[in-house]
Amino acid sequence: MITKLISKIRKTNAPIVVGLDPMMKYVPEYIKKAAFAEYGETLEGAAEAIWQFNKGIVDAIYDLVPAVKPQIAMYEQFGIPGIMAFKKTIDYCHEKDLVVIGDVKRGDIGSTSEAYAVGHLGKVQVGSKAYYGFDEDFVTVNPYLGSDGVNPFLKVCKEEKKGIFVLVKTSNPSSGELQDRLVKAKKEEKSSKGIAESIAADSMDRPLYEIVGEQVAAWGTACMPEEGDYSYVGAVVGATYPEQGRILRKIMPKTFILVPGYGAQGGKGADLVHFFNEDGLGAIINSSRGIVAAYQQEIYSHFGEKGYADASRAAVLAMREDISSALKCEKNF
Amino acid sequence: MITKLISKIRKTNAPIVVGLDPMMKYVPEYIKKAAFAEYGETLEGAAEAIWQFNKGIVDAIYDLVPAVKPQIAMYEQFGIPGIMAFKKTIDYCHEKDLVVIGDVKRGDIGSTSEAYAVGHLGKVQVGSKAYYGFDEDFVTVNPYLGSDGVNPFLKVCKEEKKGIFVLVKTSNPSSGELQDRLVKAKKEEKSSKGIAESIAADSMDRPLYEIVGEQVAAWGTACMPEEGDYSYVGAVVGATYPEQGRILRKIMPKTFILVPGYGAQGGKGADLVHFFNEDGLGAIINSSRGIVAAYQQEIYSHFGEKGYADASRAAVLAMREDISSALKCEKNF
Repeated sequence: MITKLISKIRKTNAPIVVGLDPMMKYVPEYIKKAAFAEYGETLEGAAEAIWQFNKGIVDAIYDLVPAVKPQIAMYEQFGIPGIMAFKKTIDYCHEKDLVVIGDVKRGDIGSTSEAYAVGHLGKVQVGSKAYYGFDEDFVTVNPYLGSDGVNPFLKVCKEEKKGIFVLVKTSNPSSGELQDRLVKAKKEEKSSKGIAESIAADSMDRPLYEIVGEQVAAWGTACMPEEGDYSYVGAVVGATYPEQGRILRKIMPKTFILVPGYGAQGGKGADLVHFFNEDGLGAIINSSRGIVAAYQQEIYSHFGEKGYADASRAAVLAMREDISSALKCEKNF
Repeated sequence: MITKLISKIRKTNAPIVVGLDPMMKYVPEYIKKAAFAEYGETLEGAAEAIWQFNKGIVDAIYDLVPAVKPQIAMYEQFGIPGIMAFKKTIDYCHEKDLVVIGDVKRGDIGSTSEAYAVGHLGKVQVGSKAYYGFDEDFVTVNPYLGSDGVNPFLKVCKEEKKGIFVLVKTSNPSSGELQDRLVKAKKEEKSSKGIAESIAADSMDRPLYEIVGEQVAAWGTACMPEEGDYSYVGAVVGATYPEQGRILRKIMPKTFILVPGYGAQGGKGADLVHFFNEDGLGAIINSSRGIVAAYQQEIYSHFGEKGYADASRAAVLAMREDISSALKCEKNF
């Protein structure tokens, strides 16, 4: 699936993933009105509204971008009808040949991660039959529980030729509280000969996200597709932390980086260049609000509510241009 | 809800939560057969089987324990029908007046954590109406993203009088890969006067789980219920790490600790004593496999498949006795 993702990025010339995070405040009134008229102001009504909203956007952008990233929380909040809209969205995006990254940030002890991996990427056994539960192409994974929590995903990825993106340095303001903490080099990594060396070893102390990045790179080494330079174990590194992105790019040369935080969260095109490798690949930039709620921004307001999907298309084109200029500019210097 | 949990622990004299993790291999053949006869070997059939399995166990144990903890992954793996069985299980446990801890380990950037918090603990707004999505009483939360990812849960907990358990030191073998890494004291915590002090400051370096534990204690200070000594911000600390449990108990004196890893994962009664405070409270021990699949163990095999629920009841009674003896023993020394 990483091979398909890269081939689609090349074809569209857009290392962009559209975050399908349909908060109710983004959904145009006319869509909500129609959904509530049919289902009432119920969870089913909300689910119908977000599904129709998504469908409009997907129809408007599927030829421009390689991938979408539905954030499951935005669906889960509407209970079971919400989850049904999540699944419907995945299936529809597959019909449109989009790569689907399920932003689920799961991660647990081994047997439990296995259930998540099976449910989101693989097939679950029921008696003599096997079924896909949600059938995303990639999912995001939280690394806090260590390898036990990640290995079951790798196993299913290998079987299904799918992939994951492991959280390394997230885009939110408080991501540093744990992820930036300086971690002491392990004893075996340190000289134990004396105080001088012990002080020198201080220079080996690194932020936790680097440790996680190294681990992701190591997992990736064992998870290379049959062809291509990138592993199917990716990483999440926020656009809001370009300096860390530059370092992590070097630590994880064969890792595809999913970069959230562009646009509404503050990341700009120029911040993105260091997330890419010299082959012009290695990163895919996510924008959610900035695209799905583009019509609510001043510069796209002329599209109006009814033109929300066209506004999303215009926002994708502008984002493609922004990234492309930034990458070109970088090459010239 | 922490007040209700404590009151029920006192009443049942059982600081026990039953993990409702219905893997298909635990479900007796006769239940699967009946479910597949009705729905076929489908996701619906699997969901019916795990629901019937759960119902039998809940009916057999609801008077003995204060709480249950369904692990959502075990349901999510069966797609939407699985999630429906999760919700059905929650609702049924509420009918039986059990406290429900949703083991969902969610955690994300602020706006996304808000959606999870609303969906699992709170009410989501749909037009002029508001609905509970899943309506657990507590959920487990992953802290890797920092305060941004936790605060939205605290807000909803305050409004709904519910609670969370934050992962601090998990029970799995690889939990130490990140959680045990020694973290350097922050500069402001260190003397910056010279080499000697800098070396001395090494003694302030602590494992990451202690840093998380301190943070949990700090969140808890602002989240005390109207009465009682325990905050509604709890922690998850594995029974498999009793020494770390002893330290964390001291770091987080007002934090209720959810302790997984008892039984099948290797934790024993004697390992548990340091998770409790001197008031005999402060911890609730989870057992999943050890209870729900008790009939598959040698010592309960005489119950047979059809007696699986009675076997679960017997296993709860044995676990209550094991913990109670361990606590009594500890008091005598």
